[in-house]
Amino acid sequence: MSSFGTIFKVTTFGESHCDSVGCIVEGCPPGLALTEDDVQPQLTRRRPGQSKLSTPRNEKDQVKIHSGTEHGYTLGSPIGMSVKNQDHRPGDYSETDLYPRPSHADWTYIQKYGVKSASGGGRSSARETIGRVAAGAVAEKVLAKVNNVEIVAFVSSIGNVSMNRDPQDETFQKVLQTVTREEVDGVGPIRCPDEGVREEMVKVIEKYRDAKDSIGGVVTCVVRNCPIGLGEPCFDKLEAKLAHAMLSLPATKGFEFGSGFAGTQIPGSKHNDPFVWDETKQRLTTKTNNSGGIQGGISNGENIYFSVAFKSAATISQEQETATYEGKSGVLAARGRHDPSVTPRAVPIVEAMTALVLCDAYMIQQSRNATRLSISDN
Amino acid sequence: MSSFGTIFKVTTFGESHCDSVGCIVEGCPPGLALTEDDVQPQLTRRRPGQSKLSTPRNEKDQVKIHSGTEHGYTLGSPIGMSVKNQDHRPGDYSETDLYPRPSHADWTYIQKYGVKSASGGGRSSARETIGRVAAGAVAEKVLAKVNNVEIVAFVSSIGNVSMNRDPQDETFQKVLQTVTREEVDGVGPIRCPDEGVREEMVKVIEKYRDAKDSIGGVVTCVVRNCPIGLGEPCFDKLEAKLAHAMLSLPATKGFEFGSGFAGTQIPGSKHNDPFVWDETKQRLTTKTNNSGGIQGGISNGENIYFSVAFKSAATISQEQETATYEGKSGVLAARGRHDPSVTPRAVPIVEAMTALVLCDAYMIQQSRNATRLSISDN
Amino acid sequence: MSSFGTIFKVTTFGESHCDSVGCIVEGCPPGLALTEDDVQPQLTRRRPGQSKLSTPRNEKDQVKIHSGTEHGYTLGSPIGMSVKNQDHRPGDYSETDLYPRPSHADWTYIQKYGVKSASGGGRSSARETIGRVAAGAVAEKVLAKVNNVEIVAFVSSIGNVSMNRDPQDETFQKVLQTVTREEVDGVGPIRCPDEGVREEMVKVIEKYRDAKDSIGGVVTCVVRNCPIGLGEPCFDKLEAKLAHAMLSLPATKGFEFGSGFAGTQIPGSKHNDPFVWDETKQRLTTKTNNSGGIQGGISNGENIYFSVAFKSAATISQEQETATYEGKSGVLAARGRHDPSVTPRAVPIVEAMTALVLCDAYMIQQSRNATRLSISDN
Amino acid sequence: MSSFGTIFKVTTFGESHCDSVGCIVEGCPPGLALTEDDVQPQLTRRRPGQSKLSTPRNEKDQVKIHSGTEHGYTLGSPIGMSVKNQDHRPGDYSETDLYPRPSHADWTYIQKYGVKSASGGGRSSARETIGRVAAGAVAEKVLAKVNNVEIVAFVSSIGNVSMNRDPQDETFQKVLQTVTREEVDGVGPIRCPDEGVREEMVKVIEKYRDAKDSIGGVVTCVVRNCPIGLGEPCFDKLEAKLAHAMLSLPATKGFEFGSGFAGTQIPGSKHNDPFVWDETKQRLTTKTNNSGGIQGGISNGENIYFSVAFKSAATISQEQETATYEGKSGVLAARGRHDPSVTPRAVPIVEAMTALVLCDAYMIQQSRNATRLSISDN
Repeated sequence: MSSFGTIFKVTTFGESHCDSVGCIVEGCPPGLALTEDDVQPQLTRRRPGQSKLSTPRNEKDQVKIHSGTEHGYTLGSPIGMSVKNQDHRPGDYSETDLYPRPSHADWTYIQKYGVKSASGGGRSSARETIGRVAAGAVAEKVLAKVNNVEIVAFVSSIGNVSMNRDPQDETFQKVLQTVTREEVDGVGPIRCPDEGVREEMVKVIEKYRDAKDSIGGVVTCVVRNCPIGLGEPCFDKLEAKLAHAMLSLPATKGFEFGSGFAGTQIPGSKHNDPFVWDETKQRLTTKTNNSGGIQGGISNGENIYFSVAFKSAATISQEQETATYEGKSGVLAARGRHDPSVTPRAVPIVEAMTALVLCDAYMIQQSRNATRLSISDN
Repeated sequence: MSSFGTIFKVTTFGESHCDSVGCIVEGCPPGLALTEDDVQPQLTRRRPGQSKLSTPRNEKDQVKIHSGTEHGYTLGSPIGMSVKNQDHRPGDYSETDLYPRPSHADWTYIQKYGVKSASGGGRSSARETIGRVAAGAVAEKVLAKVNNVEIVAFVSSIGNVSMNRDPQDETFQKVLQTVTREEVDGVGPIRCPDEGVREEMVKVIEKYRDAKDSIGGVVTCVVRNCPIGLGEPCFDKLEAKLAHAMLSLPATKGFEFGSGFAGTQIPGSKHNDPFVWDETKQRLTTKTNNSGGIQGGISNGENIYFSVAFKSAATISQEQETATYEGKSGVLAARGRHDPSVTPRAVPIVEAMTALVLCDAYMIQQSRNATRLSISDN
Repeated sequence: MSSFGTIFKVTTFGESHCDSVGCIVEGCPPGLALTEDDVQPQLTRRRPGQSKLSTPRNEKDQVKIHSGTEHGYTLGSPIGMSVKNQDHRPGDYSETDLYPRPSHADWTYIQKYGVKSASGGGRSSARETIGRVAAGAVAEKVLAKVNNVEIVAFVSSIGNVSMNRDPQDETFQKVLQTVTREEVDGVGPIRCPDEGVREEMVKVIEKYRDAKDSIGGVVTCVVRNCPIGLGEPCFDKLEAKLAHAMLSLPATKGFEFGSGFAGTQIPGSKHNDPFVWDETKQRLTTKTNNSGGIQGGISNGENIYFSVAFKSAATISQEQETATYEGKSGVLAARGRHDPSVTPRAVPIVEAMTALVLCDAYMIQQSRNATRLSISDN
Repeated sequence: MSSFGTIFKVTTFGESHCDSVGCIVEGCPPGLALTEDDVQPQLTRRRPGQSKLSTPRNEKDQVKIHSGTEHGYTLGSPIGMSVKNQDHRPGDYSETDLYPRPSHADWTYIQKYGVKSASGGGRSSARETIGRVAAGAVAEKVLAKVNNVEIVAFVSSIGNVSMNRDPQDETFQKVLQTVTREEVDGVGPIRCPDEGVREEMVKVIEKYRDAKDSIGGVVTCVVRNCPIGLGEPCFDKLEAKLAHAMLSLPATKGFEFGSGFAGTQIPGSKHNDPFVWDETKQRLTTKTNNSGGIQGGISNGENIYFSVAFKSAATISQEQETATYEGKSGVLAARGRHDPSVTPRAVPIVEAMTALVLCDAYMIQQSRNATRLSISDN
């Protein structure tokens, strides 16, 4: 459905070809300083039309808060937010209406809903993610106040050009420990903090753009200062909720955290993260972090990091042999220009979903912990 | 929490060191033939102690249905099921009680719950999965009646020995189309249907077993005959629920479906699955299946396939340098013998979670579809 | 929280002193004809300022549909709707800001949320019900298409002037069988279809209005043509969901269905509803209807009827001795004129909540029933 | 469905004619002292066969805790509990199998589920409430530790013999302030603390018992020391959840809290509860308590009290004219002896549901409050 979360919960609405898109955020704690200025930056980062590498569709995407705040502070009541669709042209796709776009949602939406929408895949549009990003910005503010939680995502591969993501690689761990959003954005539209591969990534995208083709990539995300104890065994382990959140994003193909798929090849004796005493934190930490900050489904205070695979965009301008809805073979070419790689734009969306997962997990754990303390004999 | 699903819903209970483990299945349709004989086989497949490759801990794991059926048919009321813990020895881990096991849940459970359980990681034990497998067996029966849905999982890699999982590889597609549980089980404890790599996998496990070490692997799962239209945009896309389900399993590190992480390197023009008319099915199908049977978060009738990464087991018999709960450095060695690879045993658990996701998604879609038809003017 | 329902689900936002109020409706079946014209009538019926008996606060309350429909039909995606707050004056209550209004939500909201909102009781305002009414209008349309379901509420008592609500009274049963919204609205602002008591009710309200006081009342609601089989044992029995829905409305004090509290005095031999064969319907019906259309938590096809108690409005213009937030005794008088009885305005709100409960229950039962049929051997 | 609650959540299973009945309690805080001895007393109070006024069906109803505790303390993991059905005789009702019992769930269950169970109404049996009572006992223990919360229910009317329940009656308020479970149980099977009406109640029940008939009644419940701030606007107001909980009990017909239905006749000027400063508590309290301890859906620290109407039991031994499933007129008489009034036995069940509602509401509020404090600048 269109709701996500248990206590800190978001419900979204809107598709590309309607009046507006937005969300309701339930469960936000009262007393949080919050205005549109807190929400807009991530929406702006998500916005298309920011560079020659991405789609020219221009949207202002100005968010409005309709409820739930007063004098710049949250009341604890639902926060309604929306963004106008200024650029919707319901007739735009009409020429290609005979064809379900390959690897797009057009055909499955009709099978599921029994109706055909102007946009084809209705809610499968990336525009649906605006509500998520707006809600995520609120969650981020809560987390920042709670424990100075930092969430930073970046592009770690484009096509076959990839950063070294080996969890035991020192450079990679350094990036995870230090990378900021400013750095990620400062390096141009590609949003990859590794200058060793960045140039090459740009070239790859340009190559596919010029070929009227598209190419996928991987977004890696790190969470620093995550409170210890988040995640709910057994079904709502923290990695399970993160995987759910990430695979609910359009165009995703995979998720891995910590050592990930590569970790299956590392024997336990090397993969296990030994405990060591940290004098500064006055608690146990782990010497290595193959666990990716989560053990037994619960955050352990180390950096949480994970990667999300984004497929090559399904909508391409070059001609494709396929079939019409009625089954006649034919050739389809999407009109206009299309994003050769959605991966860089996914960065703030991945951050938003991460914040939603963590904020909800935090509030559930707060419930347990505060109740546990209130029933304690001491 | 310990519940999963919206309409077809399972709630589990139990840890290793208590009286029993089990579940309640809510929302099962009435009139389904169901006895313990339907549930036991998958529990038996999940059971440890089946071969010299796995742990000798011997459990009978006989399931009992407590409610929800009469004369061998479901009533539509909650189905209570349980399995006795026959082998629980709360004192067993006492010697190592000073140390949180590295990369295990011991330390995070204490941080989260504020209490220390005999088993250390409480519900993080693989024994918790019994309730899932029992519930999954019910879901599978529903799906089999609905559309002859077939769910088959198998080991596709152990350590660095791997089947070719390229979605465009013909051998791999052949396996996905034809593999049966009988075949998977018939090839010995390794549960890999590819004879080209099977022997080598066994050797890898034996090597790590002999070294008192452990090694991870990948389980691949295919769903055939899945009804079209399952999965709920936007947050509960079918792949999102599958990812959630899989990453909620102990020891998992990643999930990918269809072309997965490798698919990020294939340009859109080749990655897109063109539509073709299928005369037999009298509907559109896709020529290739990089989408893994899911488009826009919705099943499209092609085979659904995905892979799940399982890390090397955290509990190993060899000595590990680590620290005690109080932070003193020391050396820990788990007593007794331990499973060098949990991956083969994960096969029926992956199948169970898949069935739970699909059965719930099917019942939600049935709700929409039946209501849509009942409000139609025709 | 601010969400209600499992499959057909509404989430609302907004309080009196913000930009707008509204809702998101999830789970609406696709293909339903729906425009603002379907939603506006119930909002208009809910609107204050319609007669000299009610508050002069004038709101246009024009609803706008933001998403989820195209060309006048639902897509199956979330339906976002909102109504502007045109008359909000955040400073309006300032003079009485020192006092928590007695029997209002001012004090408890501060205790709960730790912040004080301009409106005092934040979401406790009747304005919050706009989102419910908008969502209920959609649910009603579904139900009307499904089985010509009719939901009609009316005022059955004001203060101590009451219709005879004895379930065995013929006149009362006649009203339940025939009353329409047109009749209810046609008899003036009091919305009581019984001309024997209507005049007296008006006089009672006028008396309390002139005394700057308020008076409560009872709203009775009947549902005709409800499909058989709705309601989910054991916790979500149909009457339990209706009770939940009704008691979630501002100013309610009680709920009873069928014979209600009076029914506790009727012995089983008379209270039981004997079954009889109905030739027209070709099924069993009941001779009497003390059950109020629900048996074992499940609708039985008879008329569902229930009553909801509304207390005398807490905000009155006369002076009240009470205390300030700091505990100093003093005298409070609300400024301006206030509704002497909210009961008549509650009529469309009760109908809306009823529709929301039934539509969700219907879609859950459709899920079970369609799945049951799909697994049947025949 | 068969689950209730959001954080502190119970899922129940079992009907009369199966192996056992029970529940899983999720979300219980860790570190709570808990053994079967804490749960058994309320189950024993619920048990039939305790007096000549109630049904002779004899059940031992010994509860067993299967998981979630160790060494007498909760772990924070799900608590599985069950009670064996020792007295189930699936053939017992066979003679009357031709007739759906009037005002019972037999007919609606078949309509809903499409299958006929041995017990007729499946989960509509009072035996289903065992899981609720077991879970409620856990919730009560939490609440008692939290703030010494006391929950006491008692019979306030049988047939037309009733205590004075006027909220402004001094004797009634005295009872609410002081009544204990010991007192309620100490006065014999009728469980009414008012000696002025108790004798007469017993006579009423005896009269109907001798006439092979049944009679209904009202159970009133008071909660003392409830923490302030519980209840979730807008849909999950505390009274809404209580109403939901109560109307989900078998045989209930109505719910009212505070002044209830009678309160609709009291003008606002008298109904409003003025605030006064309480020197002992160092906070505002209310002079009167027509609000029943809940304002704006949120507990205000005063006593919460409400009443629940229970209908006359549907199963009676005297002959009733009715129809068979096929529609033939005939006469039905239930075999054996049946409870002439279920009302006294409902007392511990009402208490259990109250505890479940409050414990969940408390934990949700703890989540908000603890998070609010953690984001505060001070």
